[in-house]
Amino acid sequence: MNYNIVPLNELINQFSRLPGIGKKTAQRLAYSILEQPPERAKDFAKALVEAREKIHFCKCCQALTDLDVCQICDDEGRDRTVVCVVEEPRDVMAFERTREYKGLYHVLHGVISPLDGIGPDKLRIKELMSRLASGEINEIIMATNPTVEGEATASYISRLVKPMGIKVTRLAYGIPVGGDLEYADEYTLARALEGRNEI
Amino acid sequence: MNYNIVPLNELINQFSRLPGIGKKTAQRLAYSILEQPPERAKDFAKALVEAREKIHFCKCCQALTDLDVCQICDDEGRDRTVVCVVEEPRDVMAFERTREYKGLYHVLHGVISPLDGIGPDKLRIKELMSRLASGEINEIIMATNPTVEGEATASYISRLVKPMGIKVTRLAYGIPVGGDLEYADEYTLARALEGRNEI
Repeated sequence: MNYNIVPLNELINQFSRLPGIGKKTAQRLAYSILEQPPERAKDFAKALVEAREKIHFCKCCQALTDLDVCQICDDEGRDRTVVCVVEEPRDVMAFERTREYKGLYHVLHGVISPLDGIGPDKLRIKELMSRLASGEINEIIMATNPTVEGEATASYISRLVKPMGIKVTRLAYGIPVGGDLEYADEYTLARALEGRNEI
Repeated sequence: MNYNIVPLNELINQFSRLPGIGKKTAQRLAYSILEQPPERAKDFAKALVEAREKIHFCKCCQALTDLDVCQICDDEGRDRTVVCVVEEPRDVMAFERTREYKGLYHVLHGVISPLDGIGPDKLRIKELMSRLASGEINEIIMATNPTVEGEATASYISRLVKPMGIKVTRLAYGIPVGGDLEYADEYTLARALEGRNEI
């Protein structure tokens, strides 16, 4: 006979479905839940359900929000003439952490990737175009990832937007702050040279 | 103004309370929940609450179970004369995976550790003694971890049990199967030499 605790196996199973969580880690996490007071498990369960139920995409910028229109789109203090176009909602968080950017965002929810069958129609490009049509925006910053797909998506959107007389910019390439030149790859270093500034 | 999605932050917070899960991993896990269908979040929440509510300690061996007496204690086919004494419920699983051991278990729920203020009275030693008093058991295998605290606990219990005429054994020390002698530490190697067997 196998020693089998059904509710424990089910919990381990749920943890191991999370990305990057293997069988051993899932077991460790499940045991840690059993060692905590029952209220902790209930709070965790409540957080899971509430996050999934309450959070959806902002109907303007397509970022995550629990409101109708997200806090950023709703903030009158922000520069409404600049839109930073990113791949995923988490990229919005990354820019917000810099505390440097004061414009708006637009989340594409992916990149053009023909190999994975993702064409421009699967991204939130239509929504971006209708925002641009309002005429209020005069610059979009393409902040897709510096990958082949990210570049392709940036240039695809740039070709759509430029004829509308809107300025399209791309994030600067260069060496990361605090990085070590010795470990920088040749492409990054070449781009850093190319984009050098007078001091 | 801070960009702040309350239900998302609460979920990230819950994930980051798990052992070995840092802020970045907690964010990744929380986003992965948002990308899944809502039923998945509900199933996960249900598994959390059910595991915590239904699982408790077996009143006989103190291992985890969702029954009154665990499957192992309840199994008439097992050797009821041998008890393997382990530190934690997860150690029971480890032995069960070997499919070699057919006796019973007893979980101490810790080890004697004066530095952490854990004396013998905080462990399930009383419960072990009352099981031994039944007279059915004639061997206990001390399977605490090979640490200073594990050794101390094993010898403490051994001193209590031996006067009752019950055989007390300890797991063999030696080189792990598939290990490399070059990387074995000197204590393990010395113990492996000491415990050598004729072939």
